[in-house]
Amino acid sequence: MNNFEFKNPTKIIFGKDSIEKLKNQIPQDAKVLMLYGGGSIKKNGIYDKVKTALANVDVTEFGGIPANPEYDILMNALNVIKEENITYLLAVGGGSVIDGTKFLSAAAVYDGDTPWDILINKVRTENGMPFGTVLTLPATGSEMNSGAVITREETKEKLAMGGPGLFPQFSILDPSVITSIPQRQLANGITDAFTHVLEQYMTYPIGALLQDRFAESIMQTLVEVAPKVIEDPTDFKAASNFMWSCTMALNGLIQQGVPTDWAIHMMGHELTALFGIDHARTLAVITPSHYKYNFEAKKEKLAQYAERVWNVTEGSIEDKAYAAIEKTEAFFHQLGIDTKLSDYTDKYEGTAEEIEKRFEDRGWKLGEKQELLPADAKKIVTMAY
Amino acid sequence: MNNFEFKNPTKIIFGKDSIEKLKNQIPQDAKVLMLYGGGSIKKNGIYDKVKTALANVDVTEFGGIPANPEYDILMNALNVIKEENITYLLAVGGGSVIDGTKFLSAAAVYDGDTPWDILINKVRTENGMPFGTVLTLPATGSEMNSGAVITREETKEKLAMGGPGLFPQFSILDPSVITSIPQRQLANGITDAFTHVLEQYMTYPIGALLQDRFAESIMQTLVEVAPKVIEDPTDFKAASNFMWSCTMALNGLIQQGVPTDWAIHMMGHELTALFGIDHARTLAVITPSHYKYNFEAKKEKLAQYAERVWNVTEGSIEDKAYAAIEKTEAFFHQLGIDTKLSDYTDKYEGTAEEIEKRFEDRGWKLGEKQELLPADAKKIVTMAY
Repeated sequence: MNNFEFKNPTKIIFGKDSIEKLKNQIPQDAKVLMLYGGGSIKKNGIYDKVKTALANVDVTEFGGIPANPEYDILMNALNVIKEENITYLLAVGGGSVIDGTKFLSAAAVYDGDTPWDILINKVRTENGMPFGTVLTLPATGSEMNSGAVITREETKEKLAMGGPGLFPQFSILDPSVITSIPQRQLANGITDAFTHVLEQYMTYPIGALLQDRFAESIMQTLVEVAPKVIEDPTDFKAASNFMWSCTMALNGLIQQGVPTDWAIHMMGHELTALFGIDHARTLAVITPSHYKYNFEAKKEKLAQYAERVWNVTEGSIEDKAYAAIEKTEAFFHQLGIDTKLSDYTDKYEGTAEEIEKRFEDRGWKLGEKQELLPADAKKIVTMAY
Repeated sequence: MNNFEFKNPTKIIFGKDSIEKLKNQIPQDAKVLMLYGGGSIKKNGIYDKVKTALANVDVTEFGGIPANPEYDILMNALNVIKEENITYLLAVGGGSVIDGTKFLSAAAVYDGDTPWDILINKVRTENGMPFGTVLTLPATGSEMNSGAVITREETKEKLAMGGPGLFPQFSILDPSVITSIPQRQLANGITDAFTHVLEQYMTYPIGALLQDRFAESIMQTLVEVAPKVIEDPTDFKAASNFMWSCTMALNGLIQQGVPTDWAIHMMGHELTALFGIDHARTLAVITPSHYKYNFEAKKEKLAQYAERVWNVTEGSIEDKAYAAIEKTEAFFHQLGIDTKLSDYTDKYEGTAEEIEKRFEDRGWKLGEKQELLPADAKKIVTMAY
């Protein structure tokens, strides 16, 4: 196990009717900017619940944050923050709205030339404007971590940011919100959370027994509840386990003291940038090829995962490791998620070369040992056609 | 799964040589009171490491906090805090020193008549004097929670306290500290942490799939590393997994949304009060009898635990549940921990009646459903003779 430092101060308020508890979380004298996405919260009743809970608080609204939170739109929100002397931010949405709110938390107190610096200069935010979240879509884990990914359409960039000042002060997790989420997005959420765990687990053995078992616990639980969540989102027990698993998948706990990969995300991001494929689906496209290509380096952990998550008991380490990849792909298929790039586009020719070039330009080396070169990424993406 | 609220803001600094990082955690202008126990830290080198790390900080010392932190001694420390205008507390020790420090954190800012009120009136501390810890003995989990148990010899009382203001600001966990811990205390630490998990798990099924699996993960890990820790405390990998498991066993995570028992602790505390038996050993004495007595209520979870932690695959639910109790008792024996009261004292006659009377006087009902009466406790303790 490697040395680590871990702190996660976000307060989680979990359960049925927990949105009512919002009113005790925000200072009564706050000037709140409530941020949300395309307006689905107005149809499913969450908007009304939030407004009711905040009846005695000064709330300004900013809707329309898109699926990949866009810099130019967020800059409009930043103007509202300044004009209205906002003191507190409230994200009501999924990962995109929460990530956008984190950017605003940082930008609102940033005293450099332009908030774009925060992204290109990787400015770590030690103290942001305080904010909380009401989660409407379990998937990204952004509700209990301090990271965000922001997109700038103008320059076709998608950049990460973070810092200890960007943990939500609180996050409200009411599992009943999933009843109004389309099946497609539920499948995406499960896939996203599952892949988050894989990226922090599928590397090489380092003797971190508890972290391994926690990671396996999350995957076992997602595998167990996935069919129930898809079939009947009103199954509150299944929804609760799904929601809590997504949060625990990326709140920092399972990555302490262990190597992490994240190459699947890096390649997946490019497929979203190039073809607009849903983030989670790009992960499902890359995962099987990535594990086949890096089979030797990852086979011990693949075999352990096969045994513990998929109950594969027969065969050699290699047999089990290969079975693990097949089981994972079958799991995505069972969720209705295709795992080949050609399932999503006919224009896949040249994609691998384009991604290789982008990674070359950025000087990227990927993977848990930072040994995966752009030429390797090209091969992996080609295998994923 | 029940509704829950969870927040744990303690920063964990984990790994080899992590004591060096102490100097970055405490404000340079702080007036620090360093608290410790009987002085073993002066023999094992931890005292010197702490003093070196704090070379540029104003540090006063208070040693001699005993195994069950005693009110009268802590009141002497409180006088030092007031006389020396202390602004920051540093616990260097195990659960007793840390619990004592939590009491002082609360008492230092308490403005009632006497700090004893905090214990008898169950005052929740919202903001205490800031403090950090350097953990020297993995066991209680106090390094990452906000609770404490304080003893008052004068009145033979042992009382609990807590509140959101009593989380350590940071805790330094260097697994190499266990190399100088006597085997007896290592066995106690494993037993204590293992029983912490059991008390939050061995109730009835409530569909909290992830919390169950996390609890099982901690127990599986303790079972796996226990023989290595006892045999060779210099095995750093085993020590790391042991230390992190003890912390995760009682930092609040696995108890979210699930019923908890704690009856074993309540009965065990009385055995320590009456006979001076080590806390962990009293838990090992009560556990098998408690589970046999409450077999019907707990058999589903006992069977699940048998399957997942002890790999018992054959037989009915009852068979597996009974095997689970036997496996648990054998685990304690393997650690050199006796599981009958008569192994510790010849004067056990009348103990069950005395405990029944004490619980009657306090009007206590115990267990996950608060249905266990003093008469039940009497029977359980009798079974443990």
